[in-house]
Parts: sequence; C-alpha cells; structure tokens
Amino acid sequence: MRWIAFALVVVAALAGAVAPMAPASGQADEEAAPIFGLKIPPGYRDWRLISVAHEEGNLNDLRAILGNDVAIKASREGKLPFPDGTIIARLAWSYDPLQEGEKAFGRRQSFVAGASKNGVQFMVKDSKKYAATDGWGFAQFNDGKPADEGVHNTCFSCHAIVKARDFVFNRYAP
Amino acid sequence: MRWIAFALVVVAALAGAVAPMAPASGQADEEAAPIFGLKIPPGYRDWRLISVAHEEGNLNDLRAILGNDVAIKASREGKLPFPDGTIIARLAWSYDPLQEGEKAFGRRQSFVAGASKNGVQFMVKDSKKYAATDGWGFAQFNDGKPADEGVHNTCFSCHAIVKARDFVFNRYAP
Repeated sequence: MRWIAFALVVVAALAGAVAPMAPASGQADEEAAPIFGLKIPPGYRDWRLISVAHEEGNLNDLRAILGNDVAIKASREGKLPFPDGTIIARLAWSYDPLQEGEKAFGRRQSFVAGASKNGVQFMVKDSKKYAATDGWGFAQFNDGKPADEGVHNTCFSCHAIVKARDFVFNRYAP
Repeated sequence: MRWIAFALVVVAALAGAVAPMAPASGQADEEAAPIFGLKIPPGYRDWRLISVAHEEGNLNDLRAILGNDVAIKASREGKLPFPDGTIIARLAWSYDPLQEGEKAFGRRQSFVAGASKNGVQFMVKDSKKYAATDGWGFAQFNDGKPADEGVHNTCFSCHAIVKARDFVFNRYAP
C-alpha cells in the first residue's frame, strides 16, 4: 500500500501548492468559530467602507469597518435594526507612526496602519439563527484561525452597550 | 415680467428639490480643481480600501485611503510606479471619542470618525498629462468645491517626501 500513501502525499502537496496565501476563507474545510459557527466570509476585504477608528490602551490599533452590500445599504439609509443578511467586518492593524511624516513635520504627525493586529471580527445578522443574541452572530479569527470560546463569550455582552443602535458601535462615515 | 420671475423661482426650487444631498460628483457642470483640472471621480465612496490613518496636530482627523480598481490591483501587487489610470482618494473625518466606549472602559478608549473634515483629496496618475509633476495630478475638494490654487501648489512638494514610493504616502493594509 506504499504507493497509495505516496499518492496521498503528492495530492496533499499539490493541494498545498494551489492553496491561497492569504488565510483561507469560504473554504468548506475551514474551521468554524465556536458558539456561533461562523466562517470567514469570502471576499470580505473587497467590501466597501463603513467607517474607521482608533483604539487606545492594550488594543492600540487602527481599524476599518467594512460591510457587505446589505450592510452598506442599511448603514447609508441609517435604518435600524439591520436586516437579515447583514455582515459587518472589523479589520485592525498596528498603530505605526509614519517615519516620513516625522521627518517632514519635526514631530509625530501621522499614524498609519501597519501589520494585521487583534484579528478580524465579523457580526452576522440572522434573526432566527441567532435569536438568543438579539439576531447577531459574532466571530473572531486570528491569523485565519477562530479565537477560542472564551473570546466569543465576550462579544455579545460588550456590544450590549450599544443595544439602542442594534448592537453596532460604528456609524457610517459619509 | 413678474410671472417670468415667479417661474424662475419655481424652476430653481424644483431644481433644488431634486439636487443630490451629497456633493455632486462626475457632473458635467461641476467645477474643476485649479492647476490639474480634476473633478471629483464619480462613485469614489464605493471604492475599495487601501489603508487607514490618523493625523494629529491641526489636521486632527481619522482618514481612509480608497482606490479605484487600477489602484487596488497595483497596491496589492506592491509594484511601483503606479500605472496610468490609478486614482487614489483620501477621505477624512473628525476624530471623535466614542462616548459609549468611555462609559464601558471608564476612560477614553475608542476614537471614531465623525463628520467629514479636511476635504477629500485625489491623486490621479497620467504620465503624459502630468509629466511636470512626475505623472501625478492632485485635487482637493471642500464640501464639493475645489480648494484654491494656493492649496494645490502644496500637494506635489509635500508628496515629494515619498518620491521613492512614487509619491504615495500610504501602503496597502493587508
């Protein structure tokens, strides 16, 4: 049976060779996040911009909020609650002083996004599936891998601060 | 002739009623920016995200860099110089502490984009038309109106700081 084992190794190697370099997304074999069972939505990096933000303290990042078409339409109309099918993505990067800006201004002036940081997070609206959390499912992925259950237990309670805005912190930036 | 004056007022009122609320973009009658003759590219707010940034000091804003398809492709490939047809848009908003974040953390934690601020800027690559400025045309619009010639005279000299990166400050945020 050694030829079968060899064939499997070749198949595995070929599969690896054609795999995307970025974290796999939307792949059938991708690991789902705990509790809400979400996977990384395919193509989310191409979604349109809802807003941007900066987090201080331990998070210390620059972030962008992107939305799928349903999310963008709802955000622009400013209607709450968000409809089923809404997906909001939160990307974040390190908060880096721009060296060239310091040279030009003689002090720190510009802070720009560096490497990916603090994972990528998603909120998915499905009023039936996620009825227990007011219609929202949450997921965080670090380097393409789902964060653990402990992390996912904190999502809903924190977002409850903005229950009046359907649990969404961000507002559309015009 | 009073009925003519009245008719003109009615026409003006109707025109106002159907005018877009957002700054007009891509309209034939829109005013072009001085020096480089650029108008606001239609649909730029739908473009994909290149990166995000925060400016301190007098600018004091949060900003997003969006790119048209040519800009996104070139940014992701990391190839310089940018090809003709590249358009990069810089949007900016006021740098606002998130009230709900302060309540939750007991201190300032999150800063989010508020109202539009510091205008919207564009860089357009056309190596022939803008040969005198190394292939780049620049434009700034404040509330939909082009900034004056003095403002446009400062664009190229400031971007010359990053001549080695084809005059573009931002880097693609993965």
